[in-house]
Amino acid sequence: MSQSLNQILFDQLDSIVLIDSHSHINPHSPTSTSLADLLGYHYYTELAHSSGMPKHLIEEPGISPREKVGRLFEYLGNIDNTVQWSWFVELSQKLFGFQGDEINKSNWETVYDLADSKMAQPDWESQVLAKSKVEKVFLTNDFDDPLEGFDSKRYVPCLRTDDLVFHLAQPKVRERLHSASGQTIRTLSDLKQAIDVLFIRFKERGARACAISLPPWFAPKAYPDQSHVAQVALDDLVQFGNDASETHKRTMAEWVFWKIAELAEAYKLPFDLMIGVNRRVYPTGVFQGQDLYDSRVSLIQYAELFNAFPNLPFPISVLASVTNQELVDYAWIFPNVLTHGHWWYSNTPNYIRHDLRGRMEAIPRNKQLGYYSDAYKLEFIHPKFRMYKQLLADVLAEDFCLGHGWSEEKAIALGRQILRGNVENVFEC
Amino acid sequence: MSQSLNQILFDQLDSIVLIDSHSHINPHSPTSTSLADLLGYHYYTELAHSSGMPKHLIEEPGISPREKVGRLFEYLGNIDNTVQWSWFVELSQKLFGFQGDEINKSNWETVYDLADSKMAQPDWESQVLAKSKVEKVFLTNDFDDPLEGFDSKRYVPCLRTDDLVFHLAQPKVRERLHSASGQTIRTLSDLKQAIDVLFIRFKERGARACAISLPPWFAPKAYPDQSHVAQVALDDLVQFGNDASETHKRTMAEWVFWKIAELAEAYKLPFDLMIGVNRRVYPTGVFQGQDLYDSRVSLIQYAELFNAFPNLPFPISVLASVTNQELVDYAWIFPNVLTHGHWWYSNTPNYIRHDLRGRMEAIPRNKQLGYYSDAYKLEFIHPKFRMYKQLLADVLAEDFCLGHGWSEEKAIALGRQILRGNVENVFEC
Amino acid sequence: MSQSLNQILFDQLDSIVLIDSHSHINPHSPTSTSLADLLGYHYYTELAHSSGMPKHLIEEPGISPREKVGRLFEYLGNIDNTVQWSWFVELSQKLFGFQGDEINKSNWETVYDLADSKMAQPDWESQVLAKSKVEKVFLTNDFDDPLEGFDSKRYVPCLRTDDLVFHLAQPKVRERLHSASGQTIRTLSDLKQAIDVLFIRFKERGARACAISLPPWFAPKAYPDQSHVAQVALDDLVQFGNDASETHKRTMAEWVFWKIAELAEAYKLPFDLMIGVNRRVYPTGVFQGQDLYDSRVSLIQYAELFNAFPNLPFPISVLASVTNQELVDYAWIFPNVLTHGHWWYSNTPNYIRHDLRGRMEAIPRNKQLGYYSDAYKLEFIHPKFRMYKQLLADVLAEDFCLGHGWSEEKAIALGRQILRGNVENVFEC
Repeated sequence: MSQSLNQILFDQLDSIVLIDSHSHINPHSPTSTSLADLLGYHYYTELAHSSGMPKHLIEEPGISPREKVGRLFEYLGNIDNTVQWSWFVELSQKLFGFQGDEINKSNWETVYDLADSKMAQPDWESQVLAKSKVEKVFLTNDFDDPLEGFDSKRYVPCLRTDDLVFHLAQPKVRERLHSASGQTIRTLSDLKQAIDVLFIRFKERGARACAISLPPWFAPKAYPDQSHVAQVALDDLVQFGNDASETHKRTMAEWVFWKIAELAEAYKLPFDLMIGVNRRVYPTGVFQGQDLYDSRVSLIQYAELFNAFPNLPFPISVLASVTNQELVDYAWIFPNVLTHGHWWYSNTPNYIRHDLRGRMEAIPRNKQLGYYSDAYKLEFIHPKFRMYKQLLADVLAEDFCLGHGWSEEKAIALGRQILRGNVENVFEC
Repeated sequence: MSQSLNQILFDQLDSIVLIDSHSHINPHSPTSTSLADLLGYHYYTELAHSSGMPKHLIEEPGISPREKVGRLFEYLGNIDNTVQWSWFVELSQKLFGFQGDEINKSNWETVYDLADSKMAQPDWESQVLAKSKVEKVFLTNDFDDPLEGFDSKRYVPCLRTDDLVFHLAQPKVRERLHSASGQTIRTLSDLKQAIDVLFIRFKERGARACAISLPPWFAPKAYPDQSHVAQVALDDLVQFGNDASETHKRTMAEWVFWKIAELAEAYKLPFDLMIGVNRRVYPTGVFQGQDLYDSRVSLIQYAELFNAFPNLPFPISVLASVTNQELVDYAWIFPNVLTHGHWWYSNTPNYIRHDLRGRMEAIPRNKQLGYYSDAYKLEFIHPKFRMYKQLLADVLAEDFCLGHGWSEEKAIALGRQILRGNVENVFEC
Repeated sequence: MSQSLNQILFDQLDSIVLIDSHSHINPHSPTSTSLADLLGYHYYTELAHSSGMPKHLIEEPGISPREKVGRLFEYLGNIDNTVQWSWFVELSQKLFGFQGDEINKSNWETVYDLADSKMAQPDWESQVLAKSKVEKVFLTNDFDDPLEGFDSKRYVPCLRTDDLVFHLAQPKVRERLHSASGQTIRTLSDLKQAIDVLFIRFKERGARACAISLPPWFAPKAYPDQSHVAQVALDDLVQFGNDASETHKRTMAEWVFWKIAELAEAYKLPFDLMIGVNRRVYPTGVFQGQDLYDSRVSLIQYAELFNAFPNLPFPISVLASVTNQELVDYAWIFPNVLTHGHWWYSNTPNYIRHDLRGRMEAIPRNKQLGYYSDAYKLEFIHPKFRMYKQLLADVLAEDFCLGHGWSEEKAIALGRQILRGNVENVFEC
């Protein structure tokens, strides 16, 4: 294994200006305002909690950012082996100019102060984007997001549809839908029309995708617009809200999901499917640290969907690495199935490495969307993408240059396509 | 990692004359007649289609071979990263004498013409076999194949039983069975006797195995010869054909499968099980590019079978890499369970590497049947086996020579046994 | 990859005095008395049997140890590729002073005699412990084990609860429970009180854990102490024994399991869960060589349990590598879920390597219990731990020192914590 070849390829990949095709950035507050914002990222709070830190110490109302960070550092030594921790150290070095190798109880205040002074600079957002070489960042917008007050060329709207599909029983969600669409929801026609209004607004504001995260048990199912079964289910939801039957909730989830797919196809918005998460498995966990999964899921559950919408691209993320080979093979066969990033619990090097090699050797090169940050704050784009680019460079060096005699140029061209080119083409951005 | 050690081992393994224990070669037309035959292999058509090529361009009736290849090359650049593509480039170099590294839109006609001139030579079949160092190739014969007009020492018959097990409801299948066996199928006794006739003929013509591919939901189940439930099911199939109930179709699948296992044991034919494929998941895909799978399958479904036939060898292939550890462990425990090759969606280096290492370190060495080509045309045996031999050499070098201090000779002996010796012993050929 | 760095780290890890947190050692006879004891370990008998050795040759009553070993060596050449075989060769070299590299039909008697002379030495137990650098070894004690006549500081008792949970229908088990607790079992109160007595005795004798192995279908479920459903089930078990209904057996398994978890929490004994084994899948296999599994199991089945006992540590082993990512992620989120060793069918280098890397990069370092021997005889602790330490050193060298620029000292400290420190802390020993 030639370390220097890997490095040459990494450096080339690292010079590519990125489009980040999935994030949770708030465009009105894209960067952090203190280290507490960064270490409040659920990866750190949930790992600190898992390692022994009581939840109430983390989530006590009213504590100052500095106090919160100080408390966390009583436990963060327990997670200094994790790749998530390496992201934090790396961004501190690259973005804040921290000079050391370790950040711990003895020196965290130095980093805190460094970060404070950087974040206070008026052009911090631009600095971060420039250092991270990011040009555009996809958002994940609530369906009733007004989508105003930000540059939608830089922060690209994306319609998140989880609430519509899975939480329509909640009166609040239906009220929000009513507000956002001007439509009172009584009939399936009302509902379809309301969602149509959302698509029109998102499309007008420059949206480039719609997205949803899906539990392992979900299997999309076709419904006609005017399904008697679905109308009965909707009546139950409207009348009883959260107390509606689970069967009716599921029926409506299926009906709404199918309508969204129809609209996504009509409005030419790729439909990002993020498959496999169970919400609130650990309901007393910290904020955003409560979700896990059942890895017994199969893409065969989506076969009817993929067949029904041949012209709708489905960029797909799977939560568990054991599902990745199915993803490789469904993308190998179905023209409308694409691989999209390395998601959440599979976003660590051991799983990325195995999953990436599986993809690179068996899926057409124009169907692989390499990576997205999934970040809540811009600062995390840099270290997360860096981790991926290192692994991508390793695979290119070892499997393609050494394994198949490819030239550096040819390998870099493949890396560029996976890292950026396909994102441009698939999302037309 | 000593590259040269890997190379030494590879060269030794590469000098071994092969027996290919599973293929779809047509012994009456074993080689290709033009590049269109090679690029018509479903790997290329399905990947080209997946990358964006409309099916009608590929499967338009009446287009010439050259036209078909030219059309494919408009899209094949999208799959030049795949290992399947590397097989094509490699066989072009090794068998046709192509000198370049890349075959693309700009130079495909050179390769086309090279191939044409080679394939036109009267001894092309012998050339390919000699260059590929293949001595015998197992076939996959329909149950009513007359098995005549070819050298069954070179092309070894193998009884494919899929139609008998899964498609007996089709009138055409029962007619074929009637023709092949002389038996009208009304009762279970008729049916058993008809299948017995097939075994006798296959055995007489030198068959060395019977084989079947199985969907993930299938679980073999014992039935007595005279099962009332099965006779009722058969009556339904005979009367209603494809319109028979799914339950009855399943019952007959179970009954027939069990009888075939009994006959395989009686006639001493190893029973190749290829576990895990769902047919026609993408029914509008290209020819042979429609099958996928649900990786949620377990070998526990076969425990009753393995227990019931202790003297029948079951060489087993699994479709998904996530099933491979179960295969390793069932082969570790059950004397009659053997590992057989790396099948289809698991036949790419990332999965072979992981699956092979798991097998080599935990299964008795006399129970590992290393590889088969699964090829439709002889030309593919060379590059597919080469891929496997490289991976086998790597594992021998790294895990055995470096890891356990084995000598080259000892490592090569293990490789030889896995690659060839066990095939001879298990299939008595 | 710097081989010498890996070696330096290995040497440091290899100098650490171990606590073996799970074994099946009999403290009254901890070492072997002849090579037949070692080669009677189920790994060798089941692999020899799988490779072709008839069971009756292995298990014939009355054959001498030397005869048994001689017979085994007629087949052991078939398994000289396995990692299990490498354990035997290595312990022969390290503990018996065998000088060669291979042990086979031609020279096994030399090793037999070497072993005999070593094992006859009065301090053989101490020699083995000293050479293996083992300080304490956890046992797996039947619930009615008197726990007397051995040094419980060296051999740490652990309450095995399989019989109580899964075999309470057997009259013999209830009799043993009656004898061990003085309690006649008629009501749920009787049963809880009887189990309470067991916990008190185990705790008094220095127990540090309770443990259970669980089939893939099991899903813990909360029951009140006085559950009508459970009392009805218990009545059925008491009246009909093994003939009680499967539903009632399952209900009692759930009820007893939940009570044991309550008592484990009350008595502060970590509850080792070993998840995923199906017993007697191959009922005519050799002794202890009959169990396999269905890899379709999920830790979501344990979510209710993990939520209900936040203060009870659950060191968890999973049988199949495909479950390891779930284990990583449940340990990442739940404070009371810990990873524990590499169990049985996942205890081979290919799976350890992948599973270990997944753990080391994503779980807090204080929650990883690296390895246990699972040994029946002390002699196996040395080679099994050595295998693990080599893999641990490799991951530390490649992923941490080379990958993240860690110093050797920092890497060794992490290795020490995983190998020993966490065992001390979690089991308070």
